[in-house]
Amino acid sequence: MNIRISSVGLALYAAIALAPANAVPRQPDSAWTTDIVRSSLAHPQAFTLLTELTRIGGRPAGSSQAERAVQWGRDTMTRLGFQNIRLEPARVSHWVRGKTARAEMMGERNGKLAVCALGNSVGTPTGGITAEIVEISSLKEAEALGDAGRGKILFFNRPMDPALTATFAAYGGAVDQRVRGASAAAKSGALAVLVRSMTLSHDDYPHTGTMVYAPDAVKIPAAALSTTAADHLSQRLKEDPHLRVRLELDCKTLPEADSSNVVGEIVGAQKPDEIVLMGGHLDSWDLAQGAHDDGAGVVQSLEALRILKDSGFRPMRTIRVVLFMDEENSGGGAEAYAAAHKTEKHVAAIESDDGGFMPRAFTTSAKEEPFDRIRAWQPLLTGAGIERISAGGGGADISPLASQGAILFGLEPDNQRYFDYHHSALDTLDKVHPRELELGAIAMAILARLLSDEL
Amino acid sequence: MNIRISSVGLALYAAIALAPANAVPRQPDSAWTTDIVRSSLAHPQAFTLLTELTRIGGRPAGSSQAERAVQWGRDTMTRLGFQNIRLEPARVSHWVRGKTARAEMMGERNGKLAVCALGNSVGTPTGGITAEIVEISSLKEAEALGDAGRGKILFFNRPMDPALTATFAAYGGAVDQRVRGASAAAKSGALAVLVRSMTLSHDDYPHTGTMVYAPDAVKIPAAALSTTAADHLSQRLKEDPHLRVRLELDCKTLPEADSSNVVGEIVGAQKPDEIVLMGGHLDSWDLAQGAHDDGAGVVQSLEALRILKDSGFRPMRTIRVVLFMDEENSGGGAEAYAAAHKTEKHVAAIESDDGGFMPRAFTTSAKEEPFDRIRAWQPLLTGAGIERISAGGGGADISPLASQGAILFGLEPDNQRYFDYHHSALDTLDKVHPRELELGAIAMAILARLLSDEL
Repeated sequence: MNIRISSVGLALYAAIALAPANAVPRQPDSAWTTDIVRSSLAHPQAFTLLTELTRIGGRPAGSSQAERAVQWGRDTMTRLGFQNIRLEPARVSHWVRGKTARAEMMGERNGKLAVCALGNSVGTPTGGITAEIVEISSLKEAEALGDAGRGKILFFNRPMDPALTATFAAYGGAVDQRVRGASAAAKSGALAVLVRSMTLSHDDYPHTGTMVYAPDAVKIPAAALSTTAADHLSQRLKEDPHLRVRLELDCKTLPEADSSNVVGEIVGAQKPDEIVLMGGHLDSWDLAQGAHDDGAGVVQSLEALRILKDSGFRPMRTIRVVLFMDEENSGGGAEAYAAAHKTEKHVAAIESDDGGFMPRAFTTSAKEEPFDRIRAWQPLLTGAGIERISAGGGGADISPLASQGAILFGLEPDNQRYFDYHHSALDTLDKVHPRELELGAIAMAILARLLSDEL
Repeated sequence: MNIRISSVGLALYAAIALAPANAVPRQPDSAWTTDIVRSSLAHPQAFTLLTELTRIGGRPAGSSQAERAVQWGRDTMTRLGFQNIRLEPARVSHWVRGKTARAEMMGERNGKLAVCALGNSVGTPTGGITAEIVEISSLKEAEALGDAGRGKILFFNRPMDPALTATFAAYGGAVDQRVRGASAAAKSGALAVLVRSMTLSHDDYPHTGTMVYAPDAVKIPAAALSTTAADHLSQRLKEDPHLRVRLELDCKTLPEADSSNVVGEIVGAQKPDEIVLMGGHLDSWDLAQGAHDDGAGVVQSLEALRILKDSGFRPMRTIRVVLFMDEENSGGGAEAYAAAHKTEKHVAAIESDDGGFMPRAFTTSAKEEPFDRIRAWQPLLTGAGIERISAGGGGADISPLASQGAILFGLEPDNQRYFDYHHSALDTLDKVHPRELELGAIAMAILARLLSDEL
């Protein structure tokens, strides 16, 4: 590309730069969105906030880092001048990874496999579990194994489907192996499970994530293999079906812990008791800094309210930011928030928990009349990259509010790169683009203002 | 994000995975787009092609690397089984960077500034030019300097406007300094120009790009400073307005060279004389591998036709791929192609030259009736990430075809990261995401098939 200017660029430039600042006011008008986009892109703060948050490191629920993140959240809201800032108690899970995660192929050509424990997994006995491997590709196959699984380590190796454009759909089509594989395997008497990492990349980073034991199941250890380790193990099994692997994990679950959601707001001028909520989750997995998951959502929520405040806007309804604790494991923060606020009127809630990439859309649970009206706001969001408002909803943290009447919204960024980093050592600050992150915050600010004053 | 599946993901999953393969045919139908998306994402080839092309390195017009790229283009078309493969002659510019690009602040606190020559610039005398610096921010300011510019080095330091969402608009608003700064400066008797790099990043990589001497102007040397070097120099000038810089460049322009466009096609079954063209440019700047600019557009054009061919599709019209030579400097390839084919009927042309990032839209020069019909194809392109078909056009290589009646199209990917890498040492293969690149090729394949059979 040399000196040509794309005409789309020019069209957008004209739309943004040339919108008359003193146009006759309409409802909703667009001069304020222009101002918000320009001033936020010229003086962005989201990436600076993310730099601070990720400096804490991984923030698994129950950890001291998670508590440092809570303090940081409160201090940041104070610095930004929010109102009614408080920590609200939440009971959260407390699983610890320990120091040892080792998977080793035995025999003449022994070799290590890149591995990590899955969240909530029990550990192995000291010295590990050494057993033959049975490679399978589904829970159904695990359950059908019967005695063929007894005393073995089951190896779930069904990849995320690369043929799907929507990487979240590919994730959804494979993640049952990670979440429920251990209990399916335990039914056949297996001793442990290894699960192919939930990513479309081929690299040597194992991806962790939550797993859940069925109430009646024997608890056996569960670990993720990197995709290259999974491919390698699969190949070795073709050469030696009796290949044995020694797996050693010293992770464990501690008693539930006390932690907090962090809450702050700008009180509505006309309807202070009606709430528009924005949020993300403070906890993250521990293998990296949780920059995309969900540092991005946390700082975008903070930045969105900062943008509105600094623009001089006084909302009709109260706009509240909630930084939820323990989305990744128990959902304890979301549950505590919904329970504590069940008599409040939440008009709408916006969640950002799909990464800090370039915004593409909002999804919403709104139906029929409000949906049509909300969808008509899309042109006001183009300056933040929003091409579409479509049917869907928010994420895990705000979903309990649906039954209380809130319209749910999810920020939908580009998702091609998300699972490359997700829950692995790769989810670090350098993977986040400052402008893409800021545009997500801008999108949330514009939508929150519309939900406060125009819904 | 833990185990929740976004409902958008599921909706898209349903649309793609569950579309009935044996649905009653409609025109245009969607079963074939589903097939193309799935099979291409499962067995992508664009990134492999880009790996091959970028292995050649930078490919400036007139260089031996550019000729190697021409051979690679022909060989690749042969391997992919295209028809009527040929090299078509083009006269191209031949500028060489030389071995020396040095900018050094003189005096007690001397220090080097990261710098590179701009394309087409003349060199300095041996030993360089040493002169005081005058910092300015526009061509107008340069032209108004009069004698205050005589014997000086003018330093254009107006940044791309970060307040614009559309980075191409920000580029368009600043690039006149790079393209025409030298001739504006020469009017006041300046000896050379330094221009702030065209990027929104703050780093130490200078970004090159074409510059043009006005026909009547004295030719003075022109170089780009990295943005951090520009900031540093600006700061030093505040402390010492008489700061002198020594600039040395040994770049030069050689006589025009003979080169080639590479052309291949699949001949139309019903209207072989009507052409739907897809293209990008083979040449690149020399500081890196030209992975995004425009290796991406080259391999997407090849891959798009490969996808159509391997799907068993036989087009009604001829679908042609043109790999243009020397987009970056003279536009010689585009000119030669348009001249050689002026009696042919080009129905439509699609260009990819805005990077290999995630597709968002197609822009088109179509108006009124065909525009409405074309816009109605958008739902067929969602599987490739296309959210919108909007007014605009293609790029520099296909623009001469407009006067011959062709409807122009440009692939519009995400552009937030584009200028971080553009024309600098950072435009390398590792900045391209394989799936994002492939989705652009898929989008072009689907659009080309529609233009062949449905327009």
